Amino acid sequence: MADSQDLKEGNVGETQTKYFTFGHPPYEIRLESGKRTGPVTIAYETYGKLNRDRSNAILIAHALSGDAHAAGYHKGDAKPGWWDSMIGPGKAFDTSKHFIVCTNVLGGCRGSTGPSSINPKTGSPFALGFPMITVKDMVSAQSRLIDHLGIRKLLTVVGGSMGGMQVLQWIASYPDRICSAIPISTTMKHSPQQIAFNEVGRRAIMADPDWNSGNYYGGKAPAKGLAIARMIGHITYMSDMSMTHKFGRRFVNGSGRLFNFDAEFEIENYLRYKGDNFVKRFDANSYLYLSKSIDYFDLSDKSEFARALEIARARFLVIAFESDWLYPAYQTKEIADRCREAGYDSEFHLIDSKYGHDAFLLETDEESYLIKKFLDRVSTEYGIPVKRSLEDSSFS
Amino acid sequence: MADSQDLKEGNVGETQTKYFTFGHPPYEIRLESGKRTGPVTIAYETYGKLNRDRSNAILIAHALSGDAHAAGYHKGDAKPGWWDSMIGPGKAFDTSKHFIVCTNVLGGCRGSTGPSSINPKTGSPFALGFPMITVKDMVSAQSRLIDHLGIRKLLTVVGGSMGGMQVLQWIASYPDRICSAIPISTTMKHSPQQIAFNEVGRRAIMADPDWNSGNYYGGKAPAKGLAIARMIGHITYMSDMSMTHKFGRRFVNGSGRLFNFDAEFEIENYLRYKGDNFVKRFDANSYLYLSKSIDYFDLSDKSEFARALEIARARFLVIAFESDWLYPAYQTKEIADRCREAGYDSEFHLIDSKYGHDAFLLETDEESYLIKKFLDRVSTEYGIPVKRSLEDSSFS
Repeated sequence: MADSQDLKEGNVGETQTKYFTFGHPPYEIRLESGKRTGPVTIAYETYGKLNRDRSNAILIAHALSGDAHAAGYHKGDAKPGWWDSMIGPGKAFDTSKHFIVCTNVLGGCRGSTGPSSINPKTGSPFALGFPMITVKDMVSAQSRLIDHLGIRKLLTVVGGSMGGMQVLQWIASYPDRICSAIPISTTMKHSPQQIAFNEVGRRAIMADPDWNSGNYYGGKAPAKGLAIARMIGHITYMSDMSMTHKFGRRFVNGSGRLFNFDAEFEIENYLRYKGDNFVKRFDANSYLYLSKSIDYFDLSDKSEFARALEIARARFLVIAFESDWLYPAYQTKEIADRCREAGYDSEFHLIDSKYGHDAFLLETDEESYLIKKFLDRVSTEYGIPVKRSLEDSSFS
Repeated sequence: MADSQDLKEGNVGETQTKYFTFGHPPYEIRLESGKRTGPVTIAYETYGKLNRDRSNAILIAHALSGDAHAAGYHKGDAKPGWWDSMIGPGKAFDTSKHFIVCTNVLGGCRGSTGPSSINPKTGSPFALGFPMITVKDMVSAQSRLIDHLGIRKLLTVVGGSMGGMQVLQWIASYPDRICSAIPISTTMKHSPQQIAFNEVGRRAIMADPDWNSGNYYGGKAPAKGLAIARMIGHITYMSDMSMTHKFGRRFVNGSGRLFNFDAEFEIENYLRYKGDNFVKRFDANSYLYLSKSIDYFDLSDKSEFARALEIARARFLVIAFESDWLYPAYQTKEIADRCREAGYDSEFHLIDSKYGHDAFLLETDEESYLIKKFLDRVSTEYGIPVKRSLEDSSFS
């Protein structure tokens, strides 16, 4: 249990990843591509307690390189989960009030079934034998976990970037199972520029001879290719301004030009470091599959999303950040516009930030403020107690 | 000679690349790095005629992947030079009035000495034995050609992107040898974002095992790595809007998702095509050297550029394009601001365009209009006849 100090914007403490497996033959899951696969394992973490009427559950969806470990500390780790600043007692996703669920997506490599998992039919990793998955498939798998946890309706679904696409897919696939939704820094569909950046990353992985048509498990992974894909990603996650602020034109050695091709600018060094580190924790084939799934993502077809909105009766909080050029605000705003067209008083907030796409992970003060206010309203409307427990009355 | 039809915005016709070699031992050129190299060959083309007092010469500087062939047709070619829409009788750079010079930069691979050239000391290609070159070195080599052509002072120096950096370097290095300068879509210094994109391209080349530490001549070139570098480049040359306009989310096969990793979106196909084509005409090591030279480029230090501006007594026309996010307008505008601070009435024009960085090659109507007006004014001030010959009086 968190002590009182922790409760004043506390940390959830030590957390553990759990696993839920379903779809055993002959009940394999059916994918959007038409293929079937199973059994499927979904890695997940939960924070806080599910209330008696199971009405306080929040699902958090991660971005391309994220995982189920959104908050707290894994034993022995120095760093907390990827959205720790947003999850905990007194925080935006308040574990003293809410039950938080975060899953690793289907196709991922952080505990959920993906291309690096063992194919039970062959006893070897799937590699490219893994069926192509879509955001709809990810969300479908999540819904099975939500069933398993005994939750009929989610108080909210929230996520940024690829996580935001999962939020939109939840609206489209299960409009009657959400009280609200918070898509952040995301889009109804990938633009050709977004597809292009992903495609270059995929080319870099597949050009690496160590990729070996995806069959590198047990051998040397395509580290150079995956590092290049990640470097491209990092450029798109930051803004011109934030890079200038953080690195400028400073040289690593502090002296000046080396007149060779070593990393000499700090930005070069940073990208190499980020690229090399990523390789240690991420599977190259998962990168191919997940990046492809978001390129495929397209809910812009009016009929599907509009039909869902007719049923939904939910509240929408849509957030974008000003310097985000990977998922520019006009794309995110379109979501709010669609909801408004359908008769909802959806909120759209464009938060001033210099951090680019990374802002949704970094600008947590303003994000928290908006989300707290929003969740309080949604909770009130749905009759979920918003009154805090005595210990943290200082927040009211 | 062009016929009267041609004169009404004519083409320069068939053109040929010429070569100028200098710096034979013991008179090797001295590079900014301190290294010496020679002999050095500069490939160049000229269009129009140098007038009697050698006052009508214009130097055109190319961008990263350009060459000396800026206008007209090489024998048998279906496509004209890279800036043909701007060069010819009646065009912005009017060959009925001006003498146009365009060189392939030092370090390039299109006729000028670069890493793919034979090192006279070893009889083999330089490869990474080629000394690192800078934009200052490129311009220094150009100035030797300008000497050789008997030109004391250039009517103008013009170029976009890396070409624009050469323009700025001309101002800095030879302020008394230019009557005017036209930097387009360029910057006083590369930002960390610009360095980052180049660095990822370099990593992709160097990660290709066929690169073989630069020693691939006579064998298999690092085609995959160079293609990836070029794909990244192409994304940055276009805008979100122009990509959406040109490709949208259209599939190559017209039907829909393939659920595999082939190029299925038109944008993916386009990038692969552009990448593969580039490999046929460009040397990977040159890509390393030239991209590094522009990363090094930095004239933002107040003293050097300011000192040059004290001497210059030139006119400046600075042009940027609205959707260019690789060389955003604020960078280009800074050049005009610096000139204005130094007391010049430099013009800055931000041209509305959706084409991104490519705009300087594509938005030639507005560019031509501005440049023609500017050059007429400069010519008048310097007493260079602006009256057209009788044949093209229809333009007056």
